Amino acid sequence: MPSHTQQLTTIGLVRSPFKEAAGMPIQPPFAEGTEGIVEVFPEYADGLHDLDGFDRIWLLYWFDRAPSPRLRVVPFRDEVQRGLFATRAPCRPNPIGLSCVRLLRIEHNLLTVGGLDILDGTPLLDIKPYVPGFDAFPQSRAGWLENQRAGRVLADDRFGPDGSRSSGGPRSELD
Amino acid sequence: MPSHTQQLTTIGLVRSPFKEAAGMPIQPPFAEGTEGIVEVFPEYADGLHDLDGFDRIWLLYWFDRAPSPRLRVVPFRDEVQRGLFATRAPCRPNPIGLSCVRLLRIEHNLLTVGGLDILDGTPLLDIKPYVPGFDAFPQSRAGWLENQRAGRVLADDRFGPDGSRSSGGPRSELD
Repeated sequence: MPSHTQQLTTIGLVRSPFKEAAGMPIQPPFAEGTEGIVEVFPEYADGLHDLDGFDRIWLLYWFDRAPSPRLRVVPFRDEVQRGLFATRAPCRPNPIGLSCVRLLRIEHNLLTVGGLDILDGTPLLDIKPYVPGFDAFPQSRAGWLENQRAGRVLADDRFGPDGSRSSGGPRSELD
Repeated sequence: MPSHTQQLTTIGLVRSPFKEAAGMPIQPPFAEGTEGIVEVFPEYADGLHDLDGFDRIWLLYWFDRAPSPRLRVVPFRDEVQRGLFATRAPCRPNPIGLSCVRLLRIEHNLLTVGGLDILDGTPLLDIKPYVPGFDAFPQSRAGWLENQRAGRVLADDRFGPDGSRSSGGPRSELD
C-alpha cells in the first residue's frame, strides 16, 4: 500500500464545550448557539492578518479520538451502512476533520467562533478563509443526505474510542 | 513548538492536465472545462459506495510541490501581502489542499471530475461528500477577496519549487 510519512504540525487547539462525542452537534449548522475558542499558537499568529474580513473560516483538524478507519459506516444521520467517502464520519484513513464555522472575533492569537462541532482539545492543522466563489454550491445534490435534513443533528457514541456501537455491520479489512 | 508525527496514507492520486502550477486555474470555479481522474487505490474502493448521488465532492490532498511554509504571502488574486491563513496558498504549515470539484462519474475506483485545479500526480488524502447544508454559505463575506472576483484566475509560478517569485516581501521566520 503506497504511503508516506509526513510531519503534521499542530498549529493550535480547539477549545469547545464538548468533552465527548455523545451529544455534540454533528455539523456547524446544528451548533449555531455554540461558541468556542480556536487557540492558534503564538508563533503562527502573524498568519492571521486579514482574516477578520471573512464571515466564516474552514477549520482543518485531526480527529485525535477517532477509532480505526473502516470503509463502511452507519452515519449519524442514517440507519444503513454507507461508503465511508460518502459520509463525514471521523474513522477515515487520514482522520482529518473539516468544519465551516462562523468567525465572530479575533483577539491576538485567539479566534472566537460560532457553530462549533469539534471536541475540546482537538489539534488544529489549518485555517482557510471561506470564499463563496470557491466553496458555496447551494444547489448541489447531496445523495443519501437529501432526505435526511429533518433528522438527527446530535452525535452519539458510535464513533467513540471503544467502538462498541461503531458499525452495526461487517467491518472493512482496514478496521 | 508542539507537534506530533502522523502517518498520512496516500489513498490515491489525482490525474490532471496540469504538469506545473503556472497556467493552472487557481480554484475549481475557474477550471469548469477541465476534466481529470481521481484514482482511488483499489483497497479503498469499497468506501466509494453511495458517493454517486452527490453532484460535488471535496478532495483533500497533499501539496507535494509546495515550498516551505511562510506566514505572509502575496496571493494569486492580489498584489499585496496577506496573512497566510486568509489565503488558500499552498505554502502552509500543514500543506493540505482543499478543492470542491464536480463529480461526473464513477467507474470502479476511478472518479472522473470536473473543475480540477490540482497538479498531476498529487497524492490524495481524503474524499468527503459536498453537502450544501454543511458547506454552502453563499452570502458569506469574503474579506479581501470581495473585490477580486473579476481578477486573476490562473496561477503563475510564485509558489513553485524554486520560490523565486514566492513572496515579494519579507518572509516569515518559518520560511
